[in-house]
Amino acid sequence: MTGKLAILAGRGAMPKALAEAYPDAVCVSFDGVETPVPRVDAHHRFEAFGALLDDLKERGVERLVLAGGVGRPPLDPQSFDPFMQSLAPRLLAALQGGDDALVRLVVSIFEEAGFAVIGAHELLPELTAAPGLLAGDAPDAAARADITRAKQILTALSPLDVGQAAVVDTGIALGIETQQGTDEMLRFVSEASQTLRGKGGVLVKRPKIGQDLRVDMPAIGPETVRAAARAGLQGIVIAANQVVLIDRAALIAAAGETGVFLLAEAE
Amino acid sequence: MTGKLAILAGRGAMPKALAEAYPDAVCVSFDGVETPVPRVDAHHRFEAFGALLDDLKERGVERLVLAGGVGRPPLDPQSFDPFMQSLAPRLLAALQGGDDALVRLVVSIFEEAGFAVIGAHELLPELTAAPGLLAGDAPDAAARADITRAKQILTALSPLDVGQAAVVDTGIALGIETQQGTDEMLRFVSEASQTLRGKGGVLVKRPKIGQDLRVDMPAIGPETVRAAARAGLQGIVIAANQVVLIDRAALIAAAGETGVFLLAEAE
Repeated sequence: MTGKLAILAGRGAMPKALAEAYPDAVCVSFDGVETPVPRVDAHHRFEAFGALLDDLKERGVERLVLAGGVGRPPLDPQSFDPFMQSLAPRLLAALQGGDDALVRLVVSIFEEAGFAVIGAHELLPELTAAPGLLAGDAPDAAARADITRAKQILTALSPLDVGQAAVVDTGIALGIETQQGTDEMLRFVSEASQTLRGKGGVLVKRPKIGQDLRVDMPAIGPETVRAAARAGLQGIVIAANQVVLIDRAALIAAAGETGVFLLAEAE
Repeated sequence: MTGKLAILAGRGAMPKALAEAYPDAVCVSFDGVETPVPRVDAHHRFEAFGALLDDLKERGVERLVLAGGVGRPPLDPQSFDPFMQSLAPRLLAALQGGDDALVRLVVSIFEEAGFAVIGAHELLPELTAAPGLLAGDAPDAAARADITRAKQILTALSPLDVGQAAVVDTGIALGIETQQGTDEMLRFVSEASQTLRGKGGVLVKRPKIGQDLRVDMPAIGPETVRAAARAGLQGIVIAANQVVLIDRAALIAAAGETGVFLLAEAE
């Protein structure tokens, strides 16, 4: 897929990585969203979404990537442009459906306006990991059993739109990710009584089944590895090609230093 | 069901409540298990399980209740009696299957020896709650939606033998109980960033589907109510007739003081 690209820049490391890899892309920033993107070609407000769409069309943009989170910036309905006013009923419905519904609506609006919305992992395949062992020793039989159980938990929760990560230690579930995120879950595991602990256990992280990777990709970074080590885990298993490695070199170095294995698996 | 009753006394409030309600029952305590039971008619060691079975038969016991947890007391295989030696292969298999498997084995052994194993909730129906509102105001529409979502999460996890409790706040899952237990999960929820919080949310606690209530019943007490209040929750929903209320009067008083509603629901 070709055509002029626009990077809609949010928070985190992704906008910068994309802007550097695609120097011809139009970088767009937004009111109320701090972004580390190294250049800004256009600045817009969510309240004036119609102006954003017009601007992108005038610039000849055909493809969009939503790069990095924007949280839920406060919207001022008083300053909605006519396009946003026309969206108000769908917006209200989406706001009641949670964050995922909101972001799905945004994707729909761009697609209805004729843009292709693509995922950062398609533009930067090196952001994710091919199947294989990235650091440490391959999991032993006990860790393999824990991996299987953690995946079963994530599969069971997936239809409920909960859980990109779970920790299992020697058959016992010690952490299931909720909205607080993976690092908070690992902190919770690190605080578990030693009487509940077995051989160490594993963290499994992967997208929910059917998750739209164009708008929400699981990610791990060096801090995730260190938090896993503090929680006494043997290793981390991520879904190959579907989990963003933040600061890959530092992440693999952290795994090496802490002795935590890091394995990307295809299924 | 009638016949002479034995109370196999473990930790917690249950053995005392049962011993007081059934003054004719034989109270049995065990090496390595502190129990608050007010009388001890017989004391046994797990290593001499054959002697326990013989003693119970000699006393004319027909029904048994396992009252309160015994944890996983250290077993000395050197002092196993012949009966325990004959059980060793099944014991080893159960130990590898987790706590639930161990307790299921114990129940099987009693049943194979001709005893009926009954649940404390059958002997003390007042330990649990009939359907209805026990404290506070009935949940509003938002809390009702959270209750539904928390139940969906527990239902999804139930086949995996995980989760007797979950917290959902305004559609967002903030806590799913793992081995650390409900109170630790509530502490985790209380530490969540305020930006993730909605209208308050609810705790739902109930047995796993198919859970053997004779050997493992969910329980809540005054401390659970206070932990829920510290976590900012609107209320607690328990499964009617299937969750033990520890210190019922203090529990309902705590709900009244903190404004947390307490609702027992049948399904």
